[in-house]
Amino acid sequence: MTGRPKSGEFDLIARFFEPLSRAAPGAFGLGNDGALLTPPAGASLVVTKDLMVAGVHYPEGEKPAVLARRLLRVNLSDLAAMGADATAYALGLALPADVGDGWVEAFAGGLGLDQDAFGVALIGGDTVATAGPAVLSLTAFGTVAGAACLTRSGAREGDDIYVSGTVGDATLGLRAVQGGLAPLAPEDRAALAARFRLPEPRLALGAALVEIASCAIDVSDGLVADLGHLCAESGVAARIEADAVPLSDSARRALAGGEAAIADLITGGDDYELLFCAPPPTRSTVEALGRALGVAVTRIGATAAGQGVTVVDARGRPLTLGRTGYRHF
Amino acid sequence: MTGRPKSGEFDLIARFFEPLSRAAPGAFGLGNDGALLTPPAGASLVVTKDLMVAGVHYPEGEKPAVLARRLLRVNLSDLAAMGADATAYALGLALPADVGDGWVEAFAGGLGLDQDAFGVALIGGDTVATAGPAVLSLTAFGTVAGAACLTRSGAREGDDIYVSGTVGDATLGLRAVQGGLAPLAPEDRAALAARFRLPEPRLALGAALVEIASCAIDVSDGLVADLGHLCAESGVAARIEADAVPLSDSARRALAGGEAAIADLITGGDDYELLFCAPPPTRSTVEALGRALGVAVTRIGATAAGQGVTVVDARGRPLTLGRTGYRHF
Repeated sequence: MTGRPKSGEFDLIARFFEPLSRAAPGAFGLGNDGALLTPPAGASLVVTKDLMVAGVHYPEGEKPAVLARRLLRVNLSDLAAMGADATAYALGLALPADVGDGWVEAFAGGLGLDQDAFGVALIGGDTVATAGPAVLSLTAFGTVAGAACLTRSGAREGDDIYVSGTVGDATLGLRAVQGGLAPLAPEDRAALAARFRLPEPRLALGAALVEIASCAIDVSDGLVADLGHLCAESGVAARIEADAVPLSDSARRALAGGEAAIADLITGGDDYELLFCAPPPTRSTVEALGRALGVAVTRIGATAAGQGVTVVDARGRPLTLGRTGYRHF
Repeated sequence: MTGRPKSGEFDLIARFFEPLSRAAPGAFGLGNDGALLTPPAGASLVVTKDLMVAGVHYPEGEKPAVLARRLLRVNLSDLAAMGADATAYALGLALPADVGDGWVEAFAGGLGLDQDAFGVALIGGDTVATAGPAVLSLTAFGTVAGAACLTRSGAREGDDIYVSGTVGDATLGLRAVQGGLAPLAPEDRAALAARFRLPEPRLALGAALVEIASCAIDVSDGLVADLGHLCAESGVAARIEADAVPLSDSARRALAGGEAAIADLITGGDDYELLFCAPPPTRSTVEALGRALGVAVTRIGATAAGQGVTVVDARGRPLTLGRTGYRHF
């Protein structure tokens, strides 16, 4: 941890962050210019880095423990999309001057909870002051055997397209967090909000898919937009059926009540589910994998020659989507 | 590169950043959820992460190419302090909405210049919008053989203390950048400003010191403060002679003209020189190394039993220092 320290930086590190590094001997208790990561023999390291900004990626005033866990999970989801085994993370915090010790303690507490749950440890980082909103940066590290990782570019024509879990909960959850969806039952609003706040990185599924899937991405920009990324990187087209997209009961009730349209759910971001392709002969393997891991895995369409994403309704008519994933908080 | 994209993010990545990743096959042209880093057999990876905030770590309005190079160099300096061979970096940018394509192009241009000079490549990152000042985050990667890296904790009683280059230029340079030091000659002000803007990471020296030095750190918080970190982590005391601290001709003229006191120079930060300890029997080896690399390496004191840093004048009297490295821009 170097750079111009803000007042009390060293105290904060020692008190709140150092304990998070104890499982990683290469972190040197955060008392060094950097950390040492020694991958197992023959393994490669997978690296990913995602930022969150107060007021852009989450509402100002969100609980620091939730923010910390979300920041970590969003990055672990990227590791999942590459099929990596998550091992460690480094943290960069630019914090406003009015953030006090209590905030940092709660933030570190959230990290502690989730790093134990996901088997990772803090190996270093930097804490600085900013005159603007908080900017939270995390770099996550995982390992894969050899150089065998999932990428966005391996889909072939005729592959099946799958998505894990359910889609659209997070975009509804964000509306619930912002006080919307008032006609829905409180339990539905709470369930959707939780899906926005604390996404579930599909690490076990991603790791198991390395041998099976032809490509993968996590749904952060929205199902349609992220499928577009897979198509662009792989050089194929995709056609999915809107009715096949898996929805939670809460999302179904929001649809039924007219609180949202299917287009909102398949273009809304932040679900952090795995979207992947696999050749049809592996269909039973993929289904068995989902059952074994207790994760819903749903086939929603197929790739074809060409480019671009087409979404069709139950009668095969293309849906017109008002947006394809671009959105500001 | 994932996360909620700001307008045109994918265009910016493709146009300006993707070319910076071409030397790194594991970067997948930045078109993936993360990157793959495969260290050489038997090597460990060294990881460091430093942030810079507009208005805190550099003046608002600084040229984007200079910012980019400084951000990279500050992180490479941490790798140097661990004796690592620099290989790659990931970038996290939180940028105000009014930052245009020209700014990003110039920023990427600065990175391109320096990544070629230092032999590193961009492997990934994230670009997001912020309502506040720009926050620039960089994670740098290097390799060391086995797990043989320099740390802050290896100094023993009786070690010599050395520093590379000259000390105090950057703190004077920051004043020059801010329009200060008017009585100095323009060439001196320019030389000092350049030392603040574009520090020189001592990568070759750091790598060569792995077999020789007992501990190392880069001077970011200030010579006295960083020596304090070495002492605290190593469990020793340090005594250095103020008159032995190497100064540039420009800094000497600033001292002679009353523009600064020696205390300002040895407590001012941002020099990014290497501060390290080595046992006295290696003295001639250290000196020969400095000559071979063309880097000044100056012995400024020694460690002893105890704790804390003492700075003495030419007659051996302790200097009283008003501050020991804490400072805001």
